[in-house]
Amino acid sequence: MAIHAAVAGASGYAGGEVLRLLLGHPEIRIGALTGNSSAGRPLGEVQPHLPALAGRELVATTAEALAGHDVVFLALPHGRSAALAAKLGERTLVVDCGADFRLRDAAAWERFYGSPHAGTWPYGLPELPGAREQLRGAGRIAVPGCYPTAASLALYPAYAAGLAEPEAVIVAASGTSGAGKAAKPHLLGSEVMGSMSPYGVGGVHRHTPEMAQNLSAVAGEPVTVSFTPTLAPMPRGILATCSAKARPGVTAAGLRSAYEKAYRDEPFTVLLPEGRWPATASVYGSNTALVQVVLDEAAHRIVAVCAIDNLAKGTAGGAVQSMNIALGLPETLGLPTAGIAP
Amino acid sequence: MAIHAAVAGASGYAGGEVLRLLLGHPEIRIGALTGNSSAGRPLGEVQPHLPALAGRELVATTAEALAGHDVVFLALPHGRSAALAAKLGERTLVVDCGADFRLRDAAAWERFYGSPHAGTWPYGLPELPGAREQLRGAGRIAVPGCYPTAASLALYPAYAAGLAEPEAVIVAASGTSGAGKAAKPHLLGSEVMGSMSPYGVGGVHRHTPEMAQNLSAVAGEPVTVSFTPTLAPMPRGILATCSAKARPGVTAAGLRSAYEKAYRDEPFTVLLPEGRWPATASVYGSNTALVQVVLDEAAHRIVAVCAIDNLAKGTAGGAVQSMNIALGLPETLGLPTAGIAP
Amino acid sequence: MAIHAAVAGASGYAGGEVLRLLLGHPEIRIGALTGNSSAGRPLGEVQPHLPALAGRELVATTAEALAGHDVVFLALPHGRSAALAAKLGERTLVVDCGADFRLRDAAAWERFYGSPHAGTWPYGLPELPGAREQLRGAGRIAVPGCYPTAASLALYPAYAAGLAEPEAVIVAASGTSGAGKAAKPHLLGSEVMGSMSPYGVGGVHRHTPEMAQNLSAVAGEPVTVSFTPTLAPMPRGILATCSAKARPGVTAAGLRSAYEKAYRDEPFTVLLPEGRWPATASVYGSNTALVQVVLDEAAHRIVAVCAIDNLAKGTAGGAVQSMNIALGLPETLGLPTAGIAP
Amino acid sequence: MAIHAAVAGASGYAGGEVLRLLLGHPEIRIGALTGNSSAGRPLGEVQPHLPALAGRELVATTAEALAGHDVVFLALPHGRSAALAAKLGERTLVVDCGADFRLRDAAAWERFYGSPHAGTWPYGLPELPGAREQLRGAGRIAVPGCYPTAASLALYPAYAAGLAEPEAVIVAASGTSGAGKAAKPHLLGSEVMGSMSPYGVGGVHRHTPEMAQNLSAVAGEPVTVSFTPTLAPMPRGILATCSAKARPGVTAAGLRSAYEKAYRDEPFTVLLPEGRWPATASVYGSNTALVQVVLDEAAHRIVAVCAIDNLAKGTAGGAVQSMNIALGLPETLGLPTAGIAP
Repeated sequence: MAIHAAVAGASGYAGGEVLRLLLGHPEIRIGALTGNSSAGRPLGEVQPHLPALAGRELVATTAEALAGHDVVFLALPHGRSAALAAKLGERTLVVDCGADFRLRDAAAWERFYGSPHAGTWPYGLPELPGAREQLRGAGRIAVPGCYPTAASLALYPAYAAGLAEPEAVIVAASGTSGAGKAAKPHLLGSEVMGSMSPYGVGGVHRHTPEMAQNLSAVAGEPVTVSFTPTLAPMPRGILATCSAKARPGVTAAGLRSAYEKAYRDEPFTVLLPEGRWPATASVYGSNTALVQVVLDEAAHRIVAVCAIDNLAKGTAGGAVQSMNIALGLPETLGLPTAGIAP
Repeated sequence: MAIHAAVAGASGYAGGEVLRLLLGHPEIRIGALTGNSSAGRPLGEVQPHLPALAGRELVATTAEALAGHDVVFLALPHGRSAALAAKLGERTLVVDCGADFRLRDAAAWERFYGSPHAGTWPYGLPELPGAREQLRGAGRIAVPGCYPTAASLALYPAYAAGLAEPEAVIVAASGTSGAGKAAKPHLLGSEVMGSMSPYGVGGVHRHTPEMAQNLSAVAGEPVTVSFTPTLAPMPRGILATCSAKARPGVTAAGLRSAYEKAYRDEPFTVLLPEGRWPATASVYGSNTALVQVVLDEAAHRIVAVCAIDNLAKGTAGGAVQSMNIALGLPETLGLPTAGIAP
Repeated sequence: MAIHAAVAGASGYAGGEVLRLLLGHPEIRIGALTGNSSAGRPLGEVQPHLPALAGRELVATTAEALAGHDVVFLALPHGRSAALAAKLGERTLVVDCGADFRLRDAAAWERFYGSPHAGTWPYGLPELPGAREQLRGAGRIAVPGCYPTAASLALYPAYAAGLAEPEAVIVAASGTSGAGKAAKPHLLGSEVMGSMSPYGVGGVHRHTPEMAQNLSAVAGEPVTVSFTPTLAPMPRGILATCSAKARPGVTAAGLRSAYEKAYRDEPFTVLLPEGRWPATASVYGSNTALVQVVLDEAAHRIVAVCAIDNLAKGTAGGAVQSMNIALGLPETLGLPTAGIAP
Repeated sequence: MAIHAAVAGASGYAGGEVLRLLLGHPEIRIGALTGNSSAGRPLGEVQPHLPALAGRELVATTAEALAGHDVVFLALPHGRSAALAAKLGERTLVVDCGADFRLRDAAAWERFYGSPHAGTWPYGLPELPGAREQLRGAGRIAVPGCYPTAASLALYPAYAAGLAEPEAVIVAASGTSGAGKAAKPHLLGSEVMGSMSPYGVGGVHRHTPEMAQNLSAVAGEPVTVSFTPTLAPMPRGILATCSAKARPGVTAAGLRSAYEKAYRDEPFTVLLPEGRWPATASVYGSNTALVQVVLDEAAHRIVAVCAIDNLAKGTAGGAVQSMNIALGLPETLGLPTAGIAP
């Protein structure tokens, strides 16, 4: 029996990617599609890459429109999920691609988002220790941010194995789709093509406390994060270059071993053979995370790199993967591991 | 019972795309993978976007390696298919992504390719009138060139309906993957990013006679083609801008009607609603062709545009679609219609 | 004694490029800079690539602000130039980068722009026969559109020599800066990177009558133009692929000879050696136009290609070149011929 | 009286950029141009963006060809400069864009380059303390690497003022031209467009000891550098994101003040106003370095970012700037500060 899924925010990039993946999911039937300013228009006008849904009409984002589905994906600006979820009832699985329920620390939420903390939901990064247990049977899922997904997959094995000092430095390059579909001058193609630029420098990006939360949890002690996001001239992809001082006595072999152990059985996170480094092109459109790690002997730093597709594994893919777990479906169902390359 | 497929030339762009699509095809089991200079290496080194096949070893391209499969995809430079196919036996479906068996006119072949004509196989563009009949049950398939796929889908309805004068002008922009994976200086990222350039101008591109063949066949008279390919700063995609003088008395309504009729029941070719134009981004990684047409009243020309993914619908997708027909499978099996966007 | 120049619309792409070129012009002193919504802000905020002018304040676009300069460049939306110019007095050279005064045919203007025709000024494409004579000493200059610049340079020698039939087919790819700096969703980097798309298809683009005007003038008979612009994933550059039926008896040698004669003494238009084709990267940031032409014998069509930088030779460079002529300065003063490559 | 300059390696990217800048330099006359595999060909075939030199013939790279010029620019693979320079005599200014004479530490040279150390020449980064004194009247100049230029300009003021702990973490994104013009598969446009990837991770990139040398010199103590270069999908540009723990007691105001003091009088290095961050697009083709710095209070790290054009300020621009100083010319002569944007 098909599982009925609705997508709120179906006109945006995250919502469009959820739909693309759901179209390839054998157990899902796509129900209501909602938008804001695009309500009333056919989806084909705003998501021309989804011809199978071109004739579907976008409706306004209301609890009424979303009710009656088995799963509701929320791909909305932060601040809207709590009220909608409250009206959807416990029997509906609500998968929130937004930020509202990611943080456990209410003070951190309020400091970075400037509004009251809505709460905390099971965290949709199944690769983290203990995450799958929380996701199984869950009725609410907080999908991680795209940067925290990449940074956590790059560094958590080092922290889980007690190999890294609790000060992480993360510099990540993101494709422009991470900034969404709203037309802002600095996101024009004329501005971003051929250009790299940083933004949110100095610890002010909202994904910073989420990274610290993930790494601290596995480290068992507070980990500070210095995070610098940069905008790269590509539509998709995140390359997170992450490093931390190695604890005394850490060896290259011990480091490698920790990562091999962490990712040996993961279906979507691939530790590359030594000497090969990930490219975001390799994961274009897929739910795969490619990871590599090395010990810089001279600087005695662990340097780990993770490449993901920010919209796929970083948002919609992680959402569907978590949904699969919550619903008791095979975790990999409907999720491509193959990227579109070249 | 699974269908076993081998891919010759699995290290190249076309071969990699065949593999990506076959990985999502529910009836196919992937067998031998062959390469030339990459023989002996694991596929993961040359196709890092296909983690599911990363450990598979590439073997040398020989008839022995390819034997014993139900389907063999040839993604090789032209000139090699005839000898291989001869050794593969009639019970193996051979799908040639190369040029050897596309042309019916031996003289045209020899003029453009400078070597003896190998013959003509059923032509893998199912959307053309009569093509599906030839493909059903076929044991050999000549996959069309990427440019002829786009140009033929753009213009054939006009010629089939007798609306266009027999002189077509085709200017197409292609992503760089169309030029293959061989490292040539003019294909370096430093050279192609931020740049448009033409090549093969003046009727010398090898896809020219194939376009003329397709359009002439549906027109019932010889159609000459002026074709200019250009290299665009993107990895994938073809945008073919095609035009021809309208025959006297042609109206916008009549033109629209001919295209609606041609594409009403096609699973992969979409005539866009009036006023919307195709972008190659919308078909990234998919088997969809987006088409639009308009009558330029002042110049009395039919202007038709088609966007495809050169590696997907333009090569590997067309190959799998044709294979499905030949094997009696549902034509759309394993082929995504959704593009990866943005 | 320095020539004082003001730039209206200094916050936009065309205005910024005028400023960049004027900064390298030895005879110009840059005076007032005006903007619309950016009035009151320092130029450094909106044109961060011009550090030498970072502290200059943008003022509102009024005749008062522009008065008292020797030259005023207008880089404004169409419809505003006439009123401003009227107030600037005859001793000020007004160089209009907008469309208002390009067309001689008032009916064509009104059909394409939907507003009353303002008049016709000397046309700033010095390479056209007779243009330099009109520009010398002129007090008003209409800078051509970027597409008409490329298309006219590609085809005019063929029409001037009577070699081409009067039906031109022009397909041009433009970088996104041609669409300006206004934030529109379809111009987002996420949308345009990796994608080619057409727009204004079917004879409706406003540059169409300007091309027809230029080619008709040199042909001595009405030339119809079928023009299809496409948006290419690059910030700058136009590649115009232009063709027309060759008149009976036209030979490759005769064609070549006509182009050699036309461009032999031009400082900025380069006819490439046979066999080489222009790339837009080669003219990035320069005032150079690269041209090549060939006779397609089978289709009996003349195919000519021109690459320019749409903001440089296509707008600001053409404006400065024309200003140089009008003021009696050396035509090449301050204008780079070298592109930025790779 | 004109200064005669020869360029060895004129067919490559660095050599081409030297030529582009020299074409705009009022005191330079361009003499011999040498190449290796391209010897005997006209420059127009390999550097089509330099029409003013299109007819010049490339000759083989020999001391004889380079002799008799006032200045010789070497844009060659490392290992060749010493022998050539030895033959050129002391009256010729030799400006080496390669690595041979950058390092003072012979052991570091041999560890990273695997060949005997050739020596140390005055270092062509005039912004570093004491550098201009060494460059004035110099007969030999070692042009810095592109990454060290960006990283040193980002971090040196912090180290010079004693504000940073001696462990720097540098993650830099470079355009593909930094990898040169040799055709390698991973540098194909199809591979690099739309993709970010790291390389030389873990302290093995050859620019690492040069960064450490520069920062250690200004710090007055050994500074270790953890450096990760990444390849970005753009032809040009470097964005260096650099950080280090702040020393105890460092304040945002003190940090800002140190940078303001360092760059107040620099003609090419611009400290941006607070709150604005550099983009590589802003320095495209120019000799400008844009710098910004902030104190991450939570992580107590200094985060500094520098954007340069790797071929201009990072190579050829730095070379010409240093040449100007060595020859007693105005330091800014012939060097644009305006980038090509958008």
